[in-house]
Amino acid sequence: MLRGAYIDELQLGDEFEGYFVLKDAQSKMSSAGKPFLSATISDCSGDMDAKVWDYSGPVSTEDIGKVIAIMGTVTEFKGALQVTINRIRLADEHDNYNREKLVPSAPIDVDDAMNELKEAVASLSDPDYRRICETMLQRHEESLREIPAAKVIHHSFLHGLLMHTLNMVRLADYLSDLYADTLDRSLLIAGTCLHDIAKNQEFVVSELGLVTAYSVKGKLLGHLVMGAQEVAEVAAELGVPEEKSVLLQHMILSHHGKPETGAAVVPMCAESELLSYIDMIDSRMEIYHETMNGLQVGEFSSRIFALDKPVYRHS
Amino acid sequence: MLRGAYIDELQLGDEFEGYFVLKDAQSKMSSAGKPFLSATISDCSGDMDAKVWDYSGPVSTEDIGKVIAIMGTVTEFKGALQVTINRIRLADEHDNYNREKLVPSAPIDVDDAMNELKEAVASLSDPDYRRICETMLQRHEESLREIPAAKVIHHSFLHGLLMHTLNMVRLADYLSDLYADTLDRSLLIAGTCLHDIAKNQEFVVSELGLVTAYSVKGKLLGHLVMGAQEVAEVAAELGVPEEKSVLLQHMILSHHGKPETGAAVVPMCAESELLSYIDMIDSRMEIYHETMNGLQVGEFSSRIFALDKPVYRHS
Amino acid sequence: MLRGAYIDELQLGDEFEGYFVLKDAQSKMSSAGKPFLSATISDCSGDMDAKVWDYSGPVSTEDIGKVIAIMGTVTEFKGALQVTINRIRLADEHDNYNREKLVPSAPIDVDDAMNELKEAVASLSDPDYRRICETMLQRHEESLREIPAAKVIHHSFLHGLLMHTLNMVRLADYLSDLYADTLDRSLLIAGTCLHDIAKNQEFVVSELGLVTAYSVKGKLLGHLVMGAQEVAEVAAELGVPEEKSVLLQHMILSHHGKPETGAAVVPMCAESELLSYIDMIDSRMEIYHETMNGLQVGEFSSRIFALDKPVYRHS
Amino acid sequence: MLRGAYIDELQLGDEFEGYFVLKDAQSKMSSAGKPFLSATISDCSGDMDAKVWDYSGPVSTEDIGKVIAIMGTVTEFKGALQVTINRIRLADEHDNYNREKLVPSAPIDVDDAMNELKEAVASLSDPDYRRICETMLQRHEESLREIPAAKVIHHSFLHGLLMHTLNMVRLADYLSDLYADTLDRSLLIAGTCLHDIAKNQEFVVSELGLVTAYSVKGKLLGHLVMGAQEVAEVAAELGVPEEKSVLLQHMILSHHGKPETGAAVVPMCAESELLSYIDMIDSRMEIYHETMNGLQVGEFSSRIFALDKPVYRHS
Amino acid sequence: MLRGAYIDELQLGDEFEGYFVLKDAQSKMSSAGKPFLSATISDCSGDMDAKVWDYSGPVSTEDIGKVIAIMGTVTEFKGALQVTINRIRLADEHDNYNREKLVPSAPIDVDDAMNELKEAVASLSDPDYRRICETMLQRHEESLREIPAAKVIHHSFLHGLLMHTLNMVRLADYLSDLYADTLDRSLLIAGTCLHDIAKNQEFVVSELGLVTAYSVKGKLLGHLVMGAQEVAEVAAELGVPEEKSVLLQHMILSHHGKPETGAAVVPMCAESELLSYIDMIDSRMEIYHETMNGLQVGEFSSRIFALDKPVYRHS
Amino acid sequence: MLRGAYIDELQLGDEFEGYFVLKDAQSKMSSAGKPFLSATISDCSGDMDAKVWDYSGPVSTEDIGKVIAIMGTVTEFKGALQVTINRIRLADEHDNYNREKLVPSAPIDVDDAMNELKEAVASLSDPDYRRICETMLQRHEESLREIPAAKVIHHSFLHGLLMHTLNMVRLADYLSDLYADTLDRSLLIAGTCLHDIAKNQEFVVSELGLVTAYSVKGKLLGHLVMGAQEVAEVAAELGVPEEKSVLLQHMILSHHGKPETGAAVVPMCAESELLSYIDMIDSRMEIYHETMNGLQVGEFSSRIFALDKPVYRHS
Repeated sequence: MLRGAYIDELQLGDEFEGYFVLKDAQSKMSSAGKPFLSATISDCSGDMDAKVWDYSGPVSTEDIGKVIAIMGTVTEFKGALQVTINRIRLADEHDNYNREKLVPSAPIDVDDAMNELKEAVASLSDPDYRRICETMLQRHEESLREIPAAKVIHHSFLHGLLMHTLNMVRLADYLSDLYADTLDRSLLIAGTCLHDIAKNQEFVVSELGLVTAYSVKGKLLGHLVMGAQEVAEVAAELGVPEEKSVLLQHMILSHHGKPETGAAVVPMCAESELLSYIDMIDSRMEIYHETMNGLQVGEFSSRIFALDKPVYRHS
Repeated sequence: MLRGAYIDELQLGDEFEGYFVLKDAQSKMSSAGKPFLSATISDCSGDMDAKVWDYSGPVSTEDIGKVIAIMGTVTEFKGALQVTINRIRLADEHDNYNREKLVPSAPIDVDDAMNELKEAVASLSDPDYRRICETMLQRHEESLREIPAAKVIHHSFLHGLLMHTLNMVRLADYLSDLYADTLDRSLLIAGTCLHDIAKNQEFVVSELGLVTAYSVKGKLLGHLVMGAQEVAEVAAELGVPEEKSVLLQHMILSHHGKPETGAAVVPMCAESELLSYIDMIDSRMEIYHETMNGLQVGEFSSRIFALDKPVYRHS
Repeated sequence: MLRGAYIDELQLGDEFEGYFVLKDAQSKMSSAGKPFLSATISDCSGDMDAKVWDYSGPVSTEDIGKVIAIMGTVTEFKGALQVTINRIRLADEHDNYNREKLVPSAPIDVDDAMNELKEAVASLSDPDYRRICETMLQRHEESLREIPAAKVIHHSFLHGLLMHTLNMVRLADYLSDLYADTLDRSLLIAGTCLHDIAKNQEFVVSELGLVTAYSVKGKLLGHLVMGAQEVAEVAAELGVPEEKSVLLQHMILSHHGKPETGAAVVPMCAESELLSYIDMIDSRMEIYHETMNGLQVGEFSSRIFALDKPVYRHS
Repeated sequence: MLRGAYIDELQLGDEFEGYFVLKDAQSKMSSAGKPFLSATISDCSGDMDAKVWDYSGPVSTEDIGKVIAIMGTVTEFKGALQVTINRIRLADEHDNYNREKLVPSAPIDVDDAMNELKEAVASLSDPDYRRICETMLQRHEESLREIPAAKVIHHSFLHGLLMHTLNMVRLADYLSDLYADTLDRSLLIAGTCLHDIAKNQEFVVSELGLVTAYSVKGKLLGHLVMGAQEVAEVAAELGVPEEKSVLLQHMILSHHGKPETGAAVVPMCAESELLSYIDMIDSRMEIYHETMNGLQVGEFSSRIFALDKPVYRHS
Repeated sequence: MLRGAYIDELQLGDEFEGYFVLKDAQSKMSSAGKPFLSATISDCSGDMDAKVWDYSGPVSTEDIGKVIAIMGTVTEFKGALQVTINRIRLADEHDNYNREKLVPSAPIDVDDAMNELKEAVASLSDPDYRRICETMLQRHEESLREIPAAKVIHHSFLHGLLMHTLNMVRLADYLSDLYADTLDRSLLIAGTCLHDIAKNQEFVVSELGLVTAYSVKGKLLGHLVMGAQEVAEVAAELGVPEEKSVLLQHMILSHHGKPETGAAVVPMCAESELLSYIDMIDSRMEIYHETMNGLQVGEFSSRIFALDKPVYRHS
Repeated sequence: MLRGAYIDELQLGDEFEGYFVLKDAQSKMSSAGKPFLSATISDCSGDMDAKVWDYSGPVSTEDIGKVIAIMGTVTEFKGALQVTINRIRLADEHDNYNREKLVPSAPIDVDDAMNELKEAVASLSDPDYRRICETMLQRHEESLREIPAAKVIHHSFLHGLLMHTLNMVRLADYLSDLYADTLDRSLLIAGTCLHDIAKNQEFVVSELGLVTAYSVKGKLLGHLVMGAQEVAEVAAELGVPEEKSVLLQHMILSHHGKPETGAAVVPMCAESELLSYIDMIDSRMEIYHETMNGLQVGEFSSRIFALDKPVYRHS
């Protein structure tokens, strides 16, 4: 009996037990008139079809997205592996599984990344922008370490927002050097660091840490407005001069670049203009990265929704 | 010697003195090589060309927009009346002129209008929305009574914002009755009442009360975001439940209807959708009103910038 | 045996007979190899799944949309009620059913609404516009009392066009008072009253009174052009001065507001501009009303086609 | 003394008299304090600057566009020829000038062109479309022979509409042969022949035959809707079957191709789709022709308004 | 036993054998638990459903698009004909079938069409453009005779590109006569002849001659750039003056008319502007032709993807 | 007598001589009836108004843009400095002036920049991309060292293209490290290095080294297509595998990002997507840099054409 195996390690004939995510589930009837559950189970390594014969519940469609504990055997159907599940139940608070094993997560060391981000903030020469960032990071550190950067488009895995933010801060740092006579490094890095900071209020995050929906507040206000509002509040508490507060709010409100892509106002200073490109670059590079992982060399993808075009993987 | 005459009352040969706005001014040289000032003077009734012969200052181009005291004679040039100014000086704090005589103002009784607006707020059945409105009106009553609703597009005269807001509240009231089973009257009227409340922070207002420019804060944040932010703050202070605060912020943030016309988020409930139409109707009707005033019956205007088309005045 | 029950009144175990609409129907084969009909029946109160076992016709897919007479029993399947039909046949001209029971209809009293519309017309101070409206209403009263305002988007139920037109006329009346110095009340109300008058020529209406398709003429010319054409004809017959005829045609031709939303010409006077907003308001408020009826408090809808966005139902 | 010379024939020192168009005129004051008229005179061959010294009227700016009789001498100023006018007066009904000499006109023989158009109509195999065309041509022959096709964009000269229509009919004839199994020749040619027939109602035409403005009716309804309306009327009078009337109206209503370029409905049959391209081709080729006439070989034009781009003249 | 029958000739009860295209294939399981193949077979006359009972391979989904040899019987299912296949195998190089019988092909005589195209080229008065065309046609004659003009949109059958090119050259010839004083006939016809010449490099063509996909080069560069590049190369080899080479490249690069429809540069001379309309006309007329073939008189199509609207077939 | 002074060094009363650019020139007449030349002179430090009294040539409007030798005195007019020119003539080949003194040039050391670019190329690990770059740089080194990057929008000074290209290569280098698992460094840097390489063929460059117009070839083909074409040629000569040649051409053809901003094809691999952002960043940062140089702290610019919005300069 295998314990704790990853889905992409399972082989024909294996008997195993472990925790998985119930990715899909439908109650069906066999031609012999018997009920069975047709399911898909997943972990961070992939997914596999599964059947629970002679089963009419209680696990059902309503439990999609939850963690299950199963005992099963790997069989074959139409040339593909599938699992015949012998025992199945929902996991509860007494079960001791590793979330990182079950869902995909960013290829980063979270502590290192968080530290690097804090160091970047500590390096800001402008004390006002630095203090706002420090306060905001303190308030939101817990969620910033954990949540994805999006529901599906890009960095939609655990710690995705931290990875996305840190990549952007690195690039912002390089650019503030390359265009040193045009940019205020403190403003650029502060804005980059905080641009998505209100995503924790915008998302509904599942028990497994993934984004499953947008909150009412998130849909009616958006993370740009919520983020700017909190910056305004913190800046006022810290006694930061109003122009700096306004500029930092402006960075957050305009970071989607154009009204038709969601900017509340258009970027009107060099730093906010640049922030919108940095965000574009990091999100697009991640989309290319994820898409090309699913392609053969020399192959085009189908149309990618977020890009509105297919993508090519060259050698 | 006439005193206090309106420009549209002046007739050929009149000698007069009074206060006017220096609407335009250029220092020129006559063909005989003598300096003179070619100016335009205005009051709320219209404007007229004027000349100050043998004059090289101190009143000059830099004083455009200021109030001047003049003594002059009405003459004729190429078939039109013009003023030959005999004495000219800038007005200062010791001069005692009536601002309402000098610049256009809304055809409303300000006290009546303000009272009607307050009564509308007092009639809201929802105490939370009512208290937010009351607090916001108290805070901004002074500017709301005075400022125009825009720099040029519509209601760009004294008390214009109050006139615009009140018209919209009346219409909102009617519509909340017509669509009573779809709309929350309190939310609709509260949102309508507060939709432009942050315009006082968005405008730079001249000593005469007109909008001459936009503030830095106004350009970088916009009156939608500033208005929503203050509502959030007031709601928190009053202990209003978060959903109501969020809905009222959403009303303000979305009242421009579409991202490309400046909405920070798109309207997603019936009240916010409707607010954007009410705003459109009142601003457009005012534009038609002002445009048609300058047209003959049976005449088309030239292209109106805000409408991107000409307008027809029928009988 | 229940007779004449509404679908939303049926309970488990009820035996009933009555007329319903065959909303959907598919011929299938059971796993035992026996043919059966899987159907959906509907009336104005809702719909329910139904099965006719051991049945191979003659009622089939081709009869979708027709009225059927059935005798059946209410059973349960997977936790939901469904009907086991014992007898089924198509209704014919000898059957005596009530159309209003079978399909949804506007929540208005048709006679009252029609009278109110006629009174509005009678109140027009301009005799030319009044006579055109009276003539047009006489010609089209029958269809105006009955047809929906659309195939699916809004007011797609019996008497929908009358409800839509009357709502708009009420609002036009209010607005012609609010903006009395900008608007010609007679022109505004006349244009509002007649704006969709040619929809009866644009639609193909089923025997049950619903719109099932667009006519050839409707697609090739559109109800704007057809409506304007008939107004031109009636105005000429009545000897109305050309400018009034042209203005009223212009109201109808431009009431979709912008070329890209179907306006044949853009609105160029205050009344036509306003008509396009009034139409927008009434159609949108109905869409919100219908959408929110299908939502829980606190829930967002999926994307609504006509709005290109989801809608939120707040408390 | 030269009589009747064209402007492009005048040479330095010539004394001449004749009729010209007063293309521009401004009353000015010389540095010596004397009034003079600075004007531009034109005929179909070009234009030239002119001065009337010591002149203060009665010919003035208000007479721009009218015909004047002048006596003058050709002089030189800054290297260019100009006219010193000795006598000037407005022409009146007793003057006997040739309009074709004064304004540009299409390079066609009007009688030949009209006959060719009638022959094309006579060749239609469908008697219904043929009779509608014949009736419409009879009604409008006078204006069709004379008016331009536009105010400025293309074919804005005398007989321009006839030239444009005939070119298009020739091309339609060729295409109905090339795509014989897709097109109804009678419908295509009839629609082409009548597509702009209501332009005479859309234009305000000056005494010289050029388009100086659009009529109120033209702006509020447009020549598409007016043309379709008259076709509907004629078809009804002639007892033509409704589908043919509708198709021919559809041709006219949709010939601008897309809503954003002015189509009242979009083309939905092969003939209407094609008509929009034929119209595009003939108008664009004329624009290129006129533009290239003003260019050297190897030269680019400045941006052409109707094309939104510059044009190149190659060898 | 019928041999070589077309699909649209088969009748109930026919026993037949022959070659067909395997248009679709899915391995399924009957309710009795036996495997069967559910397929669609096609030839140039149409397609028909087919079943191979008790069959588990080797012909399968992966063979879709290949030629199969079958022996079968025509049966009936739910009122439609279908084939019960008794024997099935993939065709190989020893099989001797006629490709033209299996896939649709253009209704032209290929030799005649090719000759007409060559004669058009031979008629060019400009020797430079003529020699470039002759060289390009020699290089690409084989593919130009064979390949479709597109994957699906229009002329997607054998010899489609030749048919499309020839139609366009005919129309270009007519137009260079109609607008003789605006157009350079040699440039227009040369550009028309070569506009799609690089499509053979853009397509992946199946063994049956149809376009099944786009090549990597085709997607990354496009046939416009590839065509222009080869023209530049050939022109250089032939010693053609640079301006002519540039103009001919410009024709090819701009023939999609607008950037948003794929033009690499916008047309800037009369010939390139016209080429884009000629291409539009021929492709659209073919789309209408193919669409109307599938419609009844009086019927509207569903929305046609390439037109973004439905199409009407009138009598 | 000052010699060689810069314009921004001139002070009231200075007598000076030197070479300047004739930036503007108009022949005028004084009120006393005497001709004079009203001019503007410029060098790389700025410009100043100038007058040549009693002067009627030969220097005139036609010499705008040329270098002039002048002797003059600095006077004052309406509070601003202006030059009274005593002697003026066009410079010719015998004059020995320093071009860099006369026109603005990039703030870089050209040799250093060129070397850094060559080193970046030398560092490419892929020998094929490296050899193509080396060959292209050799061919174009002379123009790449000298020409601006644009006519007006950004980097429109001497050596501007080199500065722009080098900045972009630096950023590309950084990004190929940041996204090392997504990007092919050699392809990204090669494409960046060559993206504008054909601008020398696109521009008409004045004797002073500035771009004064676009070439015929440049307008009809564009620098994207010309650059890709030369890369194809060089790659073929060097025997580079086709896929690499195609990818590098694709980089150049797509670097404007979207069709509507001039891309011949859309970017379809990570490197081409990124190149379009790198180009955007460097051009936009330069626009902000140049714009802010002309602003006070706290001031907004007027609308910047290339950005379609104003820009703010904060402290």
